Amino acid sequence: MRIYRKELDSINSYKPGKPVEEVRRELGLDKVHKLASNECPFYPAYIRKAVNREVRNINQYPESGCFYLRDSLSRHLKVRKEQIVFGNGSDEIITLSLRAFIEAGDQVLVAYPTFLIYEIQARISGAGVVRVSLEDFGYSLRNMKKKICKNTKIIFIANPDNPSGTYVNHKELESFLLSIPAGILVYLDEAYFEFAPPDFPRSLDLLKKRGNLIVSRTFSKAYGLAGCRLGYAITTPAIARVLNKVREPFNVNRFAQAAALEALKNRKFLKKVIKHTEKEKEYFYSEFKKLNLPFVKSATNFVLVKWSADTAGIYNYLLKRGVIIRELRGWGFKNCFRVTVGKSSHNRAFIKLLRQYLSNRQTGRAKG
Amino acid sequence: MRIYRKELDSINSYKPGKPVEEVRRELGLDKVHKLASNECPFYPAYIRKAVNREVRNINQYPESGCFYLRDSLSRHLKVRKEQIVFGNGSDEIITLSLRAFIEAGDQVLVAYPTFLIYEIQARISGAGVVRVSLEDFGYSLRNMKKKICKNTKIIFIANPDNPSGTYVNHKELESFLLSIPAGILVYLDEAYFEFAPPDFPRSLDLLKKRGNLIVSRTFSKAYGLAGCRLGYAITTPAIARVLNKVREPFNVNRFAQAAALEALKNRKFLKKVIKHTEKEKEYFYSEFKKLNLPFVKSATNFVLVKWSADTAGIYNYLLKRGVIIRELRGWGFKNCFRVTVGKSSHNRAFIKLLRQYLSNRQTGRAKG
Repeated sequence: MRIYRKELDSINSYKPGKPVEEVRRELGLDKVHKLASNECPFYPAYIRKAVNREVRNINQYPESGCFYLRDSLSRHLKVRKEQIVFGNGSDEIITLSLRAFIEAGDQVLVAYPTFLIYEIQARISGAGVVRVSLEDFGYSLRNMKKKICKNTKIIFIANPDNPSGTYVNHKELESFLLSIPAGILVYLDEAYFEFAPPDFPRSLDLLKKRGNLIVSRTFSKAYGLAGCRLGYAITTPAIARVLNKVREPFNVNRFAQAAALEALKNRKFLKKVIKHTEKEKEYFYSEFKKLNLPFVKSATNFVLVKWSADTAGIYNYLLKRGVIIRELRGWGFKNCFRVTVGKSSHNRAFIKLLRQYLSNRQTGRAKG
Repeated sequence: MRIYRKELDSINSYKPGKPVEEVRRELGLDKVHKLASNECPFYPAYIRKAVNREVRNINQYPESGCFYLRDSLSRHLKVRKEQIVFGNGSDEIITLSLRAFIEAGDQVLVAYPTFLIYEIQARISGAGVVRVSLEDFGYSLRNMKKKICKNTKIIFIANPDNPSGTYVNHKELESFLLSIPAGILVYLDEAYFEFAPPDFPRSLDLLKKRGNLIVSRTFSKAYGLAGCRLGYAITTPAIARVLNKVREPFNVNRFAQAAALEALKNRKFLKKVIKHTEKEKEYFYSEFKKLNLPFVKSATNFVLVKWSADTAGIYNYLLKRGVIIRELRGWGFKNCFRVTVGKSSHNRAFIKLLRQYLSNRQTGRAKG
């Protein structure tokens, strides 16, 4: 007898990129380079002291409101403390928003393809989901606007987008936000904010002009703290209050709070990551050009590559040799893969294998 | 214009026990003894090495399935790996269960008063909530059974209960579970499982007899890892599958996974905590008797004390002197407070202040 919600049968769970530990276990490989989950290639060693200090308090629940982190982040962002909501990764901010806003009959607009969690969690929350196709790998706000109807409650915008790497700029976003009904909540997912170019939206300014806006960011990408789980929303105090209502009281663990506090102090690490990412993206671009592989220019720490055929062959070839990339079939992009900017040596290992694979294919020697 | 769900207006958020850091900040006190949140009085120093090791991987997302922890816990509990679901604390297991099972029109049965999160999260999930009063501070399964109707979807049972400390035993629970309709999901919250007495339910045996059962446990109490956030459900593989569908993919952080894996190895710490708790509870009991304070015998690491008047006076008296207890007005217990078993010295400091307060009150010298 089925007693769970029948809608769940039709929902496919999110499949994370293969973890390094899993590939090591399954293939018995020592050296594994993961270029699959848009993680930071370096770990922030400077959190060690703070993490160690927190071990002595680990028998105690974390502060529900992330007091010290909130204080530091509000000064860093120049927003009021009451405008911030912390989540167990920004994934949780997405879920909290849906749980706080979606009522029976509500619709959610998402791009297609884009980050999968919006649609998965929207459907779990009972919302109808309307997909708006990308145009040439970019969000079309014009087309999104056309799909707005009286049931539209939330519009999700990944900016920059994952997995395409494209972005909408300040002017485009501003005119969109000011032209749509005020009663629609716009969710701006800025997980890759730190990598974005100069004409990227100044979303905190836009928040002053249009209240029904949630901007979410994360410590998982440029800050190198994906394993800690810490994301946050910047929004109006009124929306923050309702997100906090549906939030579990101890959703952000002590280690994450302590580590993120250090991360805000240590700007050197962040600068290094951003500089490295720029440089290595250029390396990817130039190598892809040499290999005649079309790709999408990216405002993030990953690049989408347009492959000429199904990606299973190249994916498995790389996997068996210890390099994990991301196939995008499940996201709705056929014949494309995504590769994260890793350490320089890992990026070179990837390009070398890619070149090998292509040359083997040309000479008919490709094998699994 | 309100665009969030109107039900949220009537929901009062959970108010956590005052954190040590907050009391230090607000009252400028150096020494603060928190006996308010049923935390373990000791921190598990043996996790330090594992936590340090994890710093090097912290730029990577955690394993979504908690591979190594799952393996270890399934052997420890003698259940299949597919029967376990991990949560960001067992709070999250409660939320996941509601999100996976509650449909429009469903009702949830909760005791009253009991742990507040069931009702808060049930209402957020859109369920109707039916309260069944405790009888003499204990769950009345008989009365719960009477309130079952065709809309009853989930019954929450805190066993042992928080904040009363009472429990239902194996025989009572078994006959209840086997006498109610099979289509009702029973949620057994066993957060204090490790402290419970010999005739406590063998709930994993009951799970074999009745499928629609979720048993949740936590590393936050006896294991001393509240700050890490790690709880888990043991259930049928079918229910585990749907809970995993609504779960965010990276809900358990790396430090928590690493620490809990160590906790399962280190049985000495757990034994010490349980022995200490037994001994100190007896100390509390004997002191309360001397002070003519009625209390409820507890199967947990805390004791509910029946105070003769509003608890604000004693609460504030203790707070100003650096001892935090828990008032229970907001939970529905008027004139009762809850005190957690702390370190021996902290428990003695609490009893000393309690004695002082009572003796001041008798001689009319009580002040804030």
